[in-house]
Amino acid sequence: MMDESPAPPTDGRSAHDRPGVYSTPGAEFERDTRYLTTRITTDGRDGWPVEPGRYRLVVSRACPWASRAVVVRRLLGLEDALSMGICGPTHDERSWTFDLDPGGVDPVLGIERLRDAYVRRQPDYPRGITVPAIVDVPSGAVVTNDFPQITLDLTTQWTAHHRAGAPDLYPDALRDEIDEVAEEIYRDVNNGVYRCGFAGSQESYDRAYDRLFAGLDRLEDRLTGRRYLVGDTITEADVRLFTTLVRFDVVYHGHFKCNRNRLTEMPALWAYARDLFQTPGFGDTVDFVDIKRHYYEVHRDINPSGIVPRGPLLGGWLAPHGREALGGRPFGDGTPPGPVRDDERVPQGHGAG
Amino acid sequence: MMDESPAPPTDGRSAHDRPGVYSTPGAEFERDTRYLTTRITTDGRDGWPVEPGRYRLVVSRACPWASRAVVVRRLLGLEDALSMGICGPTHDERSWTFDLDPGGVDPVLGIERLRDAYVRRQPDYPRGITVPAIVDVPSGAVVTNDFPQITLDLTTQWTAHHRAGAPDLYPDALRDEIDEVAEEIYRDVNNGVYRCGFAGSQESYDRAYDRLFAGLDRLEDRLTGRRYLVGDTITEADVRLFTTLVRFDVVYHGHFKCNRNRLTEMPALWAYARDLFQTPGFGDTVDFVDIKRHYYEVHRDINPSGIVPRGPLLGGWLAPHGREALGGRPFGDGTPPGPVRDDERVPQGHGAG
Repeated sequence: MMDESPAPPTDGRSAHDRPGVYSTPGAEFERDTRYLTTRITTDGRDGWPVEPGRYRLVVSRACPWASRAVVVRRLLGLEDALSMGICGPTHDERSWTFDLDPGGVDPVLGIERLRDAYVRRQPDYPRGITVPAIVDVPSGAVVTNDFPQITLDLTTQWTAHHRAGAPDLYPDALRDEIDEVAEEIYRDVNNGVYRCGFAGSQESYDRAYDRLFAGLDRLEDRLTGRRYLVGDTITEADVRLFTTLVRFDVVYHGHFKCNRNRLTEMPALWAYARDLFQTPGFGDTVDFVDIKRHYYEVHRDINPSGIVPRGPLLGGWLAPHGREALGGRPFGDGTPPGPVRDDERVPQGHGAG
Repeated sequence: MMDESPAPPTDGRSAHDRPGVYSTPGAEFERDTRYLTTRITTDGRDGWPVEPGRYRLVVSRACPWASRAVVVRRLLGLEDALSMGICGPTHDERSWTFDLDPGGVDPVLGIERLRDAYVRRQPDYPRGITVPAIVDVPSGAVVTNDFPQITLDLTTQWTAHHRAGAPDLYPDALRDEIDEVAEEIYRDVNNGVYRCGFAGSQESYDRAYDRLFAGLDRLEDRLTGRRYLVGDTITEADVRLFTTLVRFDVVYHGHFKCNRNRLTEMPALWAYARDLFQTPGFGDTVDFVDIKRHYYEVHRDINPSGIVPRGPLLGGWLAPHGREALGGRPFGDGTPPGPVRDDERVPQGHGAG
């Protein structure tokens, strides 16, 4: 996602009206959560039925919200049913762009800017051009950018196209608990780091910092005795926490001033994050170079120079985590996904190796 | 010091002409090293003889260069001979100020801004108003702000006024080695962190980062088998390294993007820094609150919001360091300094406790 996307003048939030400006002096950071909420469902009740080959998931590997969908799509083996377009890590004031593609054009959608697919949906689209977005290929229009629903729908609506052995990331019996845990993680951690980084005053930063680390402390406790957040298998809740944790030391710690401690100093959380990182479908989707470039180059109001830090060292992500001792069955009755497709591999040197 | 001090228009370095601006886009950071180099000596050859009660050392606890003089003065027990004025951690575009003092006026010099003592020395003083500075109290004029010479002169010229048991921080037989080590530390580490933080381009940042961590790696090696940098006692070289190390994780790591690793991840350097911190004369001069406020509030060009991070946790500074096992005699044939004078104590809550 890119709420942190500077939209054209819109909703009176001045911070979002100016290129490179994400915080408003004196104000708390408020995420614009008004998304295109039409859903792609098995029964097609919103007009967009699940149909293999019809849609394209547009992401940036830099973005934690989009990365959730990247992970889930891969865990479920939806590569053939739902293609993926990958935007570059930086963007201008108007849109994420397909600058990684030959000629700067997405080969399926035939557009240079994701914005084009938003205005195809709504000519005067007034809000941020965010990833993830799912685009209807025939019409070229965005169907949804409602990131929390997108991953749940991949799990619950696209089941006919899941790979053999796909895990159940949102088991019926655990949904209430997953929702509850995920809500708290969203408030204090996923969005909490942004509330620290884009705080418009010392007071709002201080509040966000306290909530963030109180939340991380609770998660540290929770994960000390259990391998995964809910139940004994990987669920949607783990995906949601992972995409924030994997960015913590490389960007949130310094750039967003989330610096009470690094992730590496919280033993259970750090081992948990490594465990997931080393699980097929997680670490093999992570592009640390894109992540760092995005935050440090795009948020010029908090990093005017655009200089990207060289650190930290990343080798630790590959160290043994010892979490097998806690038991748990990562994929439940299912199996891990196979290797990443050649055309979706994170570029050499962009991972933790 | 405060080369990072915005002086009035002066030497064509545009970065230093504008308030809150310390880096120049596209350029390497260049420290203005043209100081007032007259010296206070035993023989008074420059017109300013050592004389107890005549001079006032003006510092800010925030500044690493000034902090060297604070440490050395205390190690040598010069409190009665050379009084100390303490500027607040932040300053405006024109000068450090005595805002910590009642009425905002230094009680001895009777001025609000250190700048007044510079123009008393030279009415058109064109360069940065820096700390440390030594002021001649009768005339109210700055004698010197030549920080590397100031500490050496406290050691070699003020001997008649050293306390009983004062250490020899610059022993004759070790001067060449101290000078050599200190020069390398200055280039790669003391000033190296500033070259990272105020780099005007990715390339100059990258170069500074490589030199900084190569320098720290060499120091890590050097200090793995020996307790102090030169000889087996504390010397000027240790003082110079300490004032940078104690700021490393709290400001340089994040604010200056010196983030390959934290100091706490370099075992020998971290234990060495803790050893010094816990030695009377070092940690008892450190004000972490002032340090953080200075860097984050003053350098608006790299931290436009002025928001000061809450982290990191500081309790680790008081943990056992185990360096006694390496031998060494901290004060040589001398003794540690006594307790800090009441009127010079770092405020409660500003230390590592």
